[in-house]
Amino acid sequence: MKKVNLAEKLAQVSAPWSPHVVAGFNGNDVMVAKFQGAFPFHDHPETDDLFLVLEGEVLLDVEDETHVLGPGELFVVPAGVRHRPRAAQEAKVMLIEPAGTPNTGDPETAVHKPRI
Amino acid sequence: MKKVNLAEKLAQVSAPWSPHVVAGFNGNDVMVAKFQGAFPFHDHPETDDLFLVLEGEVLLDVEDETHVLGPGELFVVPAGVRHRPRAAQEAKVMLIEPAGTPNTGDPETAVHKPRI
Repeated sequence: MKKVNLAEKLAQVSAPWSPHVVAGFNGNDVMVAKFQGAFPFHDHPETDDLFLVLEGEVLLDVEDETHVLGPGELFVVPAGVRHRPRAAQEAKVMLIEPAGTPNTGDPETAVHKPRI
Repeated sequence: MKKVNLAEKLAQVSAPWSPHVVAGFNGNDVMVAKFQGAFPFHDHPETDDLFLVLEGEVLLDVEDETHVLGPGELFVVPAGVRHRPRAAQEAKVMLIEPAGTPNTGDPETAVHKPRI
Protein backbone atom coordinates (compact mmCIF):
# COMPACT_ATOMS: atom_id res chain seq x y z
CA MET A 1 0.00 0.00 0.00
CA LYS A 2 1.49 3.27 -1.06
CA LYS A 3 0.38 6.43 -2.70
CA VAL A 4 0.62 6.90 -6.47
CA ASN A 5 1.78 10.24 -7.84
CA LEU A 6 0.21 10.44 -11.29
CA ALA A 7 2.66 13.03 -12.66
CA GLU A 8 5.64 10.91 -11.60
CA LYS A 9 4.10 7.89 -13.28
CA LEU A 10 3.39 9.86 -16.45
CA ALA A 11 7.04 10.94 -16.57
CA GLN A 12 7.85 7.24 -17.15
CA VAL A 13 5.57 7.05 -20.19
CA SER A 14 6.78 8.26 -23.57
CA ALA A 15 4.72 6.77 -26.40
CA PRO A 16 1.19 8.08 -26.90
CA TRP A 17 -1.77 5.69 -26.66
CA SER A 18 0.10 3.35 -24.34
CA PRO A 19 -1.84 2.98 -21.08
CA HIS A 20 0.33 2.06 -18.10
CA VAL A 21 -1.26 0.52 -15.02
CA VAL A 22 -0.48 2.42 -11.82
CA ALA A 23 -2.97 0.91 -9.35
CA GLY A 24 -5.69 -1.69 -9.01
CA PHE A 25 -9.16 -1.16 -7.59
CA ASN A 26 -11.77 -3.92 -7.23
CA GLY A 27 -10.51 -5.71 -10.33
CA ASN A 28 -10.13 -2.50 -12.31
CA ASP A 29 -6.91 -1.09 -13.69
CA VAL A 30 -6.19 2.54 -12.89
CA MET A 31 -3.98 3.72 -15.74
CA VAL A 32 -2.18 6.78 -17.01
CA ALA A 33 -1.59 7.53 -20.67
CA LYS A 34 -0.47 10.26 -23.01
CA PHE A 35 -2.76 11.08 -25.90
CA GLN A 36 -1.51 12.74 -29.07
CA GLY A 37 -3.04 12.48 -32.51
CA ALA A 38 -6.18 10.42 -33.09
CA PHE A 39 -7.01 6.97 -31.78
CA PRO A 40 -9.21 4.67 -33.89
CA PHE A 41 -12.95 4.65 -33.27
CA HIS A 42 -13.89 1.66 -31.12
CA ASP A 43 -16.21 0.50 -28.41
CA HIS A 44 -16.07 -1.79 -25.39
CA PRO A 45 -19.17 -4.00 -25.49
CA GLU A 46 -18.82 -5.14 -21.88
CA THR A 47 -17.61 -2.11 -19.94
CA ASP A 48 -17.91 1.60 -19.41
CA ASP A 49 -14.74 3.58 -19.99
CA LEU A 50 -13.68 6.38 -17.62
CA PHE A 51 -11.40 9.22 -18.77
CA LEU A 52 -10.08 11.96 -16.48
CA VAL A 53 -7.92 14.62 -18.11
CA LEU A 54 -4.94 15.65 -15.98
CA GLU A 55 -3.13 18.00 -18.38
CA GLY A 56 -3.84 19.35 -21.85
CA GLU A 57 -6.97 19.08 -23.92
CA VAL A 58 -8.69 15.94 -25.18
CA LEU A 59 -11.32 15.85 -27.88
CA LEU A 60 -13.58 12.90 -27.32
CA ASP A 61 -15.68 11.94 -30.33
CA VAL A 62 -18.63 9.97 -28.99
CA GLU A 63 -20.91 8.75 -31.75
CA ASP A 64 -21.67 12.00 -33.64
CA GLU A 65 -20.73 14.50 -30.93
CA THR A 66 -17.36 15.89 -29.90
CA HIS A 67 -16.71 16.68 -26.24
CA VAL A 68 -13.81 18.96 -25.33
CA LEU A 69 -12.21 17.96 -22.03
CA GLY A 70 -9.66 19.97 -20.08
CA PRO A 71 -7.81 19.30 -16.83
CA GLY A 72 -10.09 18.14 -14.04
CA GLU A 73 -12.80 17.05 -16.45
CA LEU A 74 -13.97 13.47 -16.69
CA PHE A 75 -16.17 11.55 -19.06
CA VAL A 76 -17.70 8.10 -18.83
CA VAL A 77 -18.31 6.42 -22.18
CA PRO A 78 -21.00 3.79 -21.58
CA ALA A 79 -20.45 0.21 -22.66
CA GLY A 80 -21.07 -0.35 -26.34
CA VAL A 81 -20.85 3.31 -27.36
CA ARG A 82 -18.42 4.08 -30.17
CA HIS A 83 -15.82 6.66 -29.30
CA ARG A 84 -12.46 8.04 -30.33
CA PRO A 85 -10.14 10.21 -28.25
CA ARG A 86 -8.00 12.80 -30.00
CA ALA A 87 -5.49 15.41 -28.89
CA ALA A 88 -3.87 18.06 -31.06
CA GLN A 89 -1.04 18.49 -28.52
CA GLU A 90 0.08 15.94 -25.96
CA ALA A 91 -2.49 15.45 -23.21
CA LYS A 92 -2.15 13.44 -20.00
CA VAL A 93 -5.04 11.28 -18.91
CA MET A 94 -6.08 8.89 -16.14
CA LEU A 95 -8.19 5.93 -17.29
CA ILE A 96 -10.08 3.25 -15.39
CA GLU A 97 -11.26 0.01 -16.97
CA PRO A 98 -11.71 -3.55 -15.72
CA ALA A 99 -8.36 -5.33 -15.83
CA GLY A 100 -7.88 -7.03 -19.19
CA THR A 101 -10.04 -4.64 -21.22
CA PRO A 102 -8.45 -4.30 -24.69
CA ASN A 103 -7.66 -0.62 -25.31
CA THR A 104 -8.88 -0.83 -28.89
CA GLY A 105 -11.96 -2.84 -28.01
CA ASP A 106 -10.41 -5.83 -29.83
CA PRO A 107 -7.91 -8.24 -28.24
CA GLU A 108 -6.29 -8.73 -31.68
CA THR A 109 -5.16 -5.12 -31.94
CA ALA A 110 -4.86 -4.17 -28.26
CA VAL A 111 -1.57 -3.08 -26.73
CA HIS A 112 -0.06 -4.65 -23.63
CA LYS A 113 -0.52 -2.39 -20.60
CA PRO A 114 2.66 -2.48 -18.53
CA ARG A 115 2.46 -1.93 -14.77
CA ILE A 116 4.68 0.89 -13.52
CA MET B 1 -23.54 11.59 -21.79
CA LYS B 2 -21.71 14.74 -20.90
CA LYS B 3 -18.44 15.72 -19.34
CA VAL B 4 -18.12 16.34 -15.62
CA ASN B 5 -16.04 19.28 -14.42
CA LEU B 6 -14.89 18.25 -10.96
CA ALA B 7 -14.15 21.81 -9.75
CA GLU B 8 -17.63 22.97 -10.79
CA LYS B 9 -19.18 20.05 -8.93
CA LEU B 10 -17.07 20.74 -5.84
CA ALA B 11 -18.30 24.34 -5.84
CA GLN B 12 -21.76 22.89 -5.12
CA VAL B 13 -20.55 21.06 -2.02
CA SER B 14 -20.19 22.88 1.28
CA ALA B 15 -20.15 20.47 4.21
CA PRO B 16 -17.03 18.36 4.73
CA TRP B 17 -17.28 14.57 4.66
CA SER B 18 -20.32 14.64 2.40
CA PRO B 19 -19.57 12.71 -0.80
CA HIS B 20 -21.64 13.81 -3.79
CA VAL B 21 -22.05 11.50 -6.77
CA VAL B 22 -21.01 13.09 -10.07
CA ALA B 23 -20.86 10.09 -12.41
CA GLY B 24 -21.42 6.35 -12.59
CA PHE B 25 -19.01 3.77 -13.94
CA ASN B 26 -19.77 0.03 -14.13
CA GLY B 27 -21.87 0.16 -10.98
CA ASN B 28 -19.43 2.40 -9.16
CA ASP B 29 -20.13 5.90 -7.91
CA VAL B 30 -17.60 8.55 -8.87
CA MET B 31 -17.85 11.16 -6.12
CA VAL B 32 -16.36 14.46 -5.03
CA ALA B 33 -16.02 15.51 -1.40
CA LYS B 34 -14.38 18.11 0.77
CA PHE B 35 -12.33 16.84 3.68
CA GLN B 36 -11.62 18.96 6.75
CA GLY B 37 -10.87 17.69 10.24
CA ALA B 38 -10.72 13.97 10.97
CA PHE B 39 -13.10 11.25 9.83
CA PRO B 40 -13.64 8.21 12.08
CA PHE B 41 -11.51 5.13 11.55
CA HIS B 42 -13.46 2.55 9.55
CA ASP B 43 -13.12 -0.14 6.93
CA HIS B 44 -15.13 -1.47 4.02
CA PRO B 45 -15.14 -5.26 4.28
CA GLU B 46 -16.35 -5.79 0.72
CA THR B 47 -14.64 -3.15 -1.38
CA ASP B 48 -11.44 -1.27 -2.07
CA ASP B 49 -11.65 2.49 -1.63
CA LEU B 50 -10.03 4.86 -4.14
CA PHE B 51 -9.00 8.40 -3.16
CA LEU B 52 -7.58 10.96 -5.60
CA VAL B 53 -6.62 14.33 -4.13
CA LEU B 54 -7.54 17.26 -6.37
CA GLU B 55 -6.63 20.20 -4.12
CA GLY B 56 -5.03 20.55 -0.70
CA GLU B 57 -3.40 17.92 1.46
CA VAL B 58 -4.95 14.77 2.89
CA LEU B 59 -3.43 12.69 5.66
CA LEU B 60 -4.55 9.11 5.27
CA ASP B 61 -4.05 6.99 8.36
CA VAL B 62 -3.97 3.38 7.17
CA GLU B 63 -3.61 0.93 10.02
CA ASP B 64 -0.49 2.28 11.79
CA GLU B 65 0.96 4.37 8.96
CA THR B 66 0.13 7.88 7.80
CA HIS B 67 0.32 8.70 4.10
CA VAL B 68 0.48 12.34 3.02
CA LEU B 69 -1.34 12.94 -0.27
CA GLY B 70 -1.20 16.09 -2.36
CA PRO B 71 -2.89 17.07 -5.61
CA GLY B 72 -2.58 14.42 -8.31
CA GLU B 73 -1.86 11.68 -5.79
CA LEU B 74 -4.11 8.67 -5.37
CA PHE B 75 -4.34 5.88 -2.87
CA VAL B 76 -6.27 2.63 -2.93
CA VAL B 77 -7.21 1.31 0.51
CA PRO B 78 -7.81 -2.44 0.08
CA ALA B 79 -11.04 -4.01 1.30
CA GLY B 80 -11.05 -4.69 5.02
CA VAL B 81 -8.17 -2.35 5.87
CA ARG B 82 -8.88 0.21 8.59
CA HIS B 83 -8.30 3.79 7.55
CA ARG B 84 -9.10 7.36 8.46
CA PRO B 85 -8.72 10.42 6.23
CA ARG B 86 -7.80 13.73 7.83
CA ALA B 87 -7.16 17.24 6.55
CA ALA B 88 -5.87 20.18 8.57
CA GLN B 89 -7.21 22.61 5.95
CA GLU B 90 -10.00 21.95 3.48
CA ALA B 91 -8.98 19.46 0.80
CA LYS B 92 -10.88 18.44 -2.33
CA VAL B 93 -11.00 14.79 -3.27
CA MET B 94 -12.41 12.44 -5.90
CA LEU B 95 -13.59 9.07 -4.58
CA ILE B 96 -14.72 5.90 -6.32
CA GLU B 97 -16.65 3.13 -4.58
CA PRO B 98 -19.31 0.67 -5.66
CA ALA B 99 -22.71 2.37 -5.55
CA GLY B 100 -24.29 1.91 -2.15
CA THR B 101 -21.05 1.63 -0.17
CA PRO B 102 -21.60 3.27 3.25
CA ASN B 103 -19.04 6.07 3.68
CA THR B 104 -18.43 5.09 7.30
CA GLY B 105 -18.31 1.38 6.55
CA ASP B 106 -21.60 1.00 8.47
CA PRO B 107 -25.06 1.58 6.93
CA GLU B 108 -26.31 2.76 10.35
CA THR B 109 -24.00 5.76 10.44
CA ALA B 110 -23.48 6.41 6.71
CA VAL B 111 -24.54 9.66 5.07
CA HIS B 112 -26.76 9.85 2.02
CA LYS B 113 -24.71 10.64 -1.09
CA PRO B 114 -26.66 13.10 -3.23
CA ARG B 115 -26.20 13.11 -6.99
CA ILE B 116 -25.22 16.49 -8.41
